[in-house]
Amino acid sequence: MNTIEEPARCVDADRLRDDIETNAEYGAIAVAEGRGRTVLPGTEANRRVREYFVERLEDAGLDVRVDAVGNVVGRWVPDGADPDAAAVAAGSHLDSVPEGGIFDGVLGVYGALEAVRALQEADADLGRPVEVVCFTEEEGTRFSNGVLGSAVASGQQSVEEALALEDDDGISLDDALTDIGARGTGRLDASAWDSWLEVHVEQSSRLEDANVPVGIVTSITGTIRCEVEVQGEANHAGCAAMHDRTDALAAASELVLDVEGATEDVVAEKGETVVGTVGKLDVSPNAVNVVPGHAELGIDIRDVEYDSMEAVVGAVESSLARLEAERGVDTTFERPYDIEPIAMHDRCTTALSEAAAESGVSTMELHSGAGHDTMHVAKVTDSGMIFAPSRDGISHNPLEWTGWESCASATRVLTGAIAELAGTMSS
Amino acid sequence: MNTIEEPARCVDADRLRDDIETNAEYGAIAVAEGRGRTVLPGTEANRRVREYFVERLEDAGLDVRVDAVGNVVGRWVPDGADPDAAAVAAGSHLDSVPEGGIFDGVLGVYGALEAVRALQEADADLGRPVEVVCFTEEEGTRFSNGVLGSAVASGQQSVEEALALEDDDGISLDDALTDIGARGTGRLDASAWDSWLEVHVEQSSRLEDANVPVGIVTSITGTIRCEVEVQGEANHAGCAAMHDRTDALAAASELVLDVEGATEDVVAEKGETVVGTVGKLDVSPNAVNVVPGHAELGIDIRDVEYDSMEAVVGAVESSLARLEAERGVDTTFERPYDIEPIAMHDRCTTALSEAAAESGVSTMELHSGAGHDTMHVAKVTDSGMIFAPSRDGISHNPLEWTGWESCASATRVLTGAIAELAGTMSS
Repeated sequence: MNTIEEPARCVDADRLRDDIETNAEYGAIAVAEGRGRTVLPGTEANRRVREYFVERLEDAGLDVRVDAVGNVVGRWVPDGADPDAAAVAAGSHLDSVPEGGIFDGVLGVYGALEAVRALQEADADLGRPVEVVCFTEEEGTRFSNGVLGSAVASGQQSVEEALALEDDDGISLDDALTDIGARGTGRLDASAWDSWLEVHVEQSSRLEDANVPVGIVTSITGTIRCEVEVQGEANHAGCAAMHDRTDALAAASELVLDVEGATEDVVAEKGETVVGTVGKLDVSPNAVNVVPGHAELGIDIRDVEYDSMEAVVGAVESSLARLEAERGVDTTFERPYDIEPIAMHDRCTTALSEAAAESGVSTMELHSGAGHDTMHVAKVTDSGMIFAPSRDGISHNPLEWTGWESCASATRVLTGAIAELAGTMSS
Repeated sequence: MNTIEEPARCVDADRLRDDIETNAEYGAIAVAEGRGRTVLPGTEANRRVREYFVERLEDAGLDVRVDAVGNVVGRWVPDGADPDAAAVAAGSHLDSVPEGGIFDGVLGVYGALEAVRALQEADADLGRPVEVVCFTEEEGTRFSNGVLGSAVASGQQSVEEALALEDDDGISLDDALTDIGARGTGRLDASAWDSWLEVHVEQSSRLEDANVPVGIVTSITGTIRCEVEVQGEANHAGCAAMHDRTDALAAASELVLDVEGATEDVVAEKGETVVGTVGKLDVSPNAVNVVPGHAELGIDIRDVEYDSMEAVVGAVESSLARLEAERGVDTTFERPYDIEPIAMHDRCTTALSEAAAESGVSTMELHSGAGHDTMHVAKVTDSGMIFAPSRDGISHNPLEWTGWESCASATRVLTGAIAELAGTMSS
């Protein structure tokens, strides 16, 4: 009887690297240091990325289909498997942020394909089909706030809504996909899968700091985004006495520090997974000699516990009430983006842990602070996720880097877990 | 013997209004409320403004000359005056901020011309020539930080330096003035004047609040501008734990509040003339899901006492040192703009006060928190300044408004003061 170690041994680190490096050519940007690419959905770079991916799926003998929102699936039905059984699926995304790195998403897609090739070469006896998936617009750089393709595949958003989304120039996703020949039909249904696995770069430095090659994700944090406006009164910086001002920036500055302070309070009480960030602040009129009349802030709050997130949101609202009372500003508060934390499924984390153990790859458990397609898929099917180390924790940047051996190690763990979930049988 | 009241009686409120309203046509903008104009130096609107002004100077029989940086002077040598005597000069500027109002600067220029016309009609016996002046680029919207023409006329900046200044498109002041036929020769020399008077709209609401029609300026505040950069570390808002961040915006927010707090401390100690403003804050990368890595702040500090200004600057530097130590940010500090407060001359304030008393116009003393051409001229010749009330204190805005009777009252006071300074003799 074969052990599940054997398919993992067939993972070809060079073949995986070749795919990632070839993919990196499309949308490549010139940088002084590192290796960058810009692959926004529905662009020429995205067309080339997709064409190469389909070619590589077909090279491995997979049946390719593309759904209406451009999600790509390569399906492999192993000899002896039940073609009607629910598939084990794995993948990620191939779009990037502007001037992003070459691993984010790509490792998960080509790692899944490499896993299938390794399973084929190991002649693994599997009971279920295996699907390799690339979701559309994970990064949310053109049409959406992100994780768009997986939102549709998991039924969180309709195909029609997604296709009607427009970029800043008024071009719809529908037209952009049609332009590059990536507008398929139907809807990829993630709820039909037996299980789902995603490999991703960590995007922080916990693995590197601990010198551990693979992280097993226990949960993905929820994300609440708040949009706040502070209305004061623009005034001449020389003529308006201090007591006669309603300075929107001074009020906004208090809010920034209140968000930081409230988050640190929750950290002290419940642990360091909660984070609260004011990442965006736009001041108006933003002239050195004018007392600011208006400020807009974008706040991002995440944790693995939803009540911790709510505690920070509550602090934001209290801060705004206090600023209205004490500083005479008017404020508005919106909460346009609200995703609850989601735990990975025991079946999947166990399969991943066992596969790692059998391949001799050491692991640690951690949570994901970044959102991923898995957070949508996990709502409708049993899901698991592993991380490969990010050098210096850097991502969304040409300096993003994951060593080629780390890429292969994570792919070996993925391969073993797919074999486990898809049901390796005695040969 | 004529009193100095008589020329003031010849001020024609309608004639003054006609000039201000005609001037308002050039560069006029469509607005829902109020009356706006955009007259940047060296533009077509500026050409028309200048042509109308020269025409009106010539209509009144003044000799017009234009210097190399476009400063315009109309000179009147009254019958019986000594043409070699140092002139009494008055004026202001005709450029505006983008979408500015119709009174800022304009009242001072056309008020000065109206004063000359009144003096002519009163057949005032004067010992000195009178000059009516329009300075180039007071607002600093295209080529400079402002008060450019008066900086050249007072020897603070050379003609060559000024002409070489370029706008954002690389067009030099020299070329822009040449294009509109406003590039003269030589340099207007403010130090050659006996004295200088400027009428301006107040740009705050002290006169309106006190229901007083004319303010006698005692001093113009100095202005120090500081440019600060705060370098933190951009990071993923979901992946970077709170203790592992160097958030440039959180540090910048502390600085904003430190500037406010330090200024309020100086107010409590020395009085409310000191003001400190962070008017400008640019955050990078300014995305909701990224911990800010960089922030740039523009700080404006003003007072009638230079040591109070220095106290606030000292607080800025202390704050930066503390933020470097406590938050691990790197900071830079520059001080590119530094103008000391300047007092008006007793000769001029006395002449203005007496002229007001003789015209039955009540006045109050106040300082100017805004910079004006007078702050340069006052370095080289005895200077005085009066304010007319600004409705609701609004300026640099189409809602800027000064009642026509207030314009006339201020012009009457100006007329009387010119008559006094230019030496009215017995008829």
